[in-house]
Amino acid sequence: MAAQSLTVGVDLGGTKIQTAILRGLDVLGTARVSTPQTGGDDVAAAIMVTINEAAAAAKVRATMLGLIGVGSPGTVDQKTGLVSHAANINGFEAGYALGKRLAGLTGAKVVIDNDVRVAVLGEHRAGAGRGIDNFLGVFLGTGVGGGLVLNGVLRRGRGAAGEVGHTVVKDEGRLCGCGRRGCLEAYASRSGIERQARALMKKGRKTELFDIMHARGRSTLTGGVIYRALERKDRVTLELIDDAVWALGIALASAQNLLDLEGMIIGGGLGDRLGQPFIDRVTAAMHPHLFVDDRPPKLLPTALKDLSGAVGAALLAADSLT
Amino acid sequence: MAAQSLTVGVDLGGTKIQTAILRGLDVLGTARVSTPQTGGDDVAAAIMVTINEAAAAAKVRATMLGLIGVGSPGTVDQKTGLVSHAANINGFEAGYALGKRLAGLTGAKVVIDNDVRVAVLGEHRAGAGRGIDNFLGVFLGTGVGGGLVLNGVLRRGRGAAGEVGHTVVKDEGRLCGCGRRGCLEAYASRSGIERQARALMKKGRKTELFDIMHARGRSTLTGGVIYRALERKDRVTLELIDDAVWALGIALASAQNLLDLEGMIIGGGLGDRLGQPFIDRVTAAMHPHLFVDDRPPKLLPTALKDLSGAVGAALLAADSLT
Repeated sequence: MAAQSLTVGVDLGGTKIQTAILRGLDVLGTARVSTPQTGGDDVAAAIMVTINEAAAAAKVRATMLGLIGVGSPGTVDQKTGLVSHAANINGFEAGYALGKRLAGLTGAKVVIDNDVRVAVLGEHRAGAGRGIDNFLGVFLGTGVGGGLVLNGVLRRGRGAAGEVGHTVVKDEGRLCGCGRRGCLEAYASRSGIERQARALMKKGRKTELFDIMHARGRSTLTGGVIYRALERKDRVTLELIDDAVWALGIALASAQNLLDLEGMIIGGGLGDRLGQPFIDRVTAAMHPHLFVDDRPPKLLPTALKDLSGAVGAALLAADSLT
Repeated sequence: MAAQSLTVGVDLGGTKIQTAILRGLDVLGTARVSTPQTGGDDVAAAIMVTINEAAAAAKVRATMLGLIGVGSPGTVDQKTGLVSHAANINGFEAGYALGKRLAGLTGAKVVIDNDVRVAVLGEHRAGAGRGIDNFLGVFLGTGVGGGLVLNGVLRRGRGAAGEVGHTVVKDEGRLCGCGRRGCLEAYASRSGIERQARALMKKGRKTELFDIMHARGRSTLTGGVIYRALERKDRVTLELIDDAVWALGIALASAQNLLDLEGMIIGGGLGDRLGQPFIDRVTAAMHPHLFVDDRPPKLLPTALKDLSGAVGAALLAADSLT
């Protein structure tokens, strides 16, 4: 059975590469390294390191691994394995033939798709979305990524479906990383929270966010930094999380009114960190805006946490055999 | 071939009943009467009048018509033909067994579904949506109805999919007929426009809207009344249509970012009346909010105009044979 052969899943992110080796739905071994910022060939080499480490952890020979799935940010040409517009990875902005390179280095068949879509696939088949045929995955990280499963099938549209992060929650609202204003992502992503925190500091507001960031040797507000500031009841952080809850309430309710989904899965680095108490607040914020409010969608945390992408990438690769 | 047999389609609305007789996709005859406000049995009798008139126009015997499709507002139990929660039709609020009654009066097989969904089906198979497998139908009438076709199939969700009218375009914005605030419907429906026009009059604003309404013997702001006031460049009407364009721009862009559709079809009594110039304005208002803005969805008027519902109802009935 194809589903029972060994498969590699690689989740390529702007800050880290997370790799897992699966047999069917079972994770046999994992490995993680920081993403090199020195060009595409170095990224491919770092992926090779994670594959070898994960193979060692799984106690399998790396040469047995004939099938590699990759989830990558940016625009992915599934036929050629060319990745482009991945603004967070040096060397990938103009386009890098990652699929060809990995195939050359390993001799394996390589399948690449968008990182958010493979994470949704991972949660659908092996995580919180098992048994839920109609759901929206919402990943709160550097941006806000989204992916839709409708009638059990990942929706691609013309290649760009799922961008719930660019739901307009407030016309002429906060500036978003996409250059527009008022998108969900401007309120509920790490980068949106950081931008607003810096703007508030400039206006004279005090916050511990950046002290915590520096103390941890970070250069951006990670989910962990934001979570720690929340624990310390930092006033600015409390307000910014209130804003994120408010924005998610509006965007998810509008999506629900349009699609009548069974569930929504909240993940990503920030979403995983904030966890169930945050999800409960979003559920409450969404409710007043639901047109059919007696059967709201069930909001769930991810089950695979930071392995959603790697597991989904492996399953994507396994699918390519069938 | 089932598609070539004679089929009756009935579009039951709060103000009128529109019936069409089809052979395949060809409309052979139509008839229209006002909707009685004197109870369910009178509505069923009025439907019988339209069927007989349409049969005469089509030059077919009414007794040959063995298959009737009905699009109805409210909640429709497709198995029993029970219609409920249809607030705009007297006698239907608490529930009326329309399917059973019509079957008893005609001996025909009767199939009933939601009015907006059958109108979307009509446009998809025989109207502006032919050849477009992923689109959103948006019907601007008393409310704002919506229906989604995804991968060629009408999306039902758990029975309530398509409610684009309740996209939140402005948190704590205008009061909507649904009791919530800031929904698209509060800005882009006849009832929303009328409510806001009355509120502005109370504040001392002058408008010709209600003079035109009275001169035409109407008791509500019809699409025709609003269109005439626009032609006269009535200041309040111009502002209210600006608001409708703005609200549609936000709601349709958010839907597009989530679903990556090929097209959107704008219809309904008000939408049909405002026509292409209005659709061009909505297209322009949507564009700044599109995440992928180099291939916007094509916005189109309905092709079947006020026959979308009746044609769709007939096609729904024909489908029930296959």
